[in-house]
Amino acid sequence: MDENLLGIIAGALTSVAMLPQLLKVIKNKNAEDLSWGMLMVLISGLSLWVWYGFLKDELPIILSNAFAVLVNITLLICCIIYKKKSS
Amino acid sequence: MDENLLGIIAGALTSVAMLPQLLKVIKNKNAEDLSWGMLMVLISGLSLWVWYGFLKDELPIILSNAFAVLVNITLLICCIIYKKKSS
Repeated sequence: MDENLLGIIAGALTSVAMLPQLLKVIKNKNAEDLSWGMLMVLISGLSLWVWYGFLKDELPIILSNAFAVLVNITLLICCIIYKKKSS
Repeated sequence: MDENLLGIIAGALTSVAMLPQLLKVIKNKNAEDLSWGMLMVLISGLSLWVWYGFLKDELPIILSNAFAVLVNITLLICCIIYKKKSS
């Protein structure tokens, strides 16, 4: 199979799998199950993957990890908004 | 920075970020927040990333995604065990 196509399918699947958590947090306006610290670690790791993708010039890695960074930054923002409200 | 070192650091961070959820599910013996369907999508996507890593011969991608597959298969097993018990 073409490597780029494989990477894009892999990236699409792992990206889709993240969305339910995001939708759940937004819908319920509740982020108490999320941990600040872990989101920061995850966002750092995903950003390094994007950097890695640029160094290796691999579009599937750049796209899927950049999408994951966006999802997790949104989760982090939800975390800040909803935790403030509940305290 | 060396690409492989960068990939290994990125993989270590994203791997570490997954552990709290696993530990929480095992500790609380409660998997009601996890979705079967999403775990299956995630495991498929991560397995394709491992395959992609083999095609591209990139050890950081193989290692970090193989670890993620293991963590998510464990979550899936927890899901099956704990949901059976609670029903």
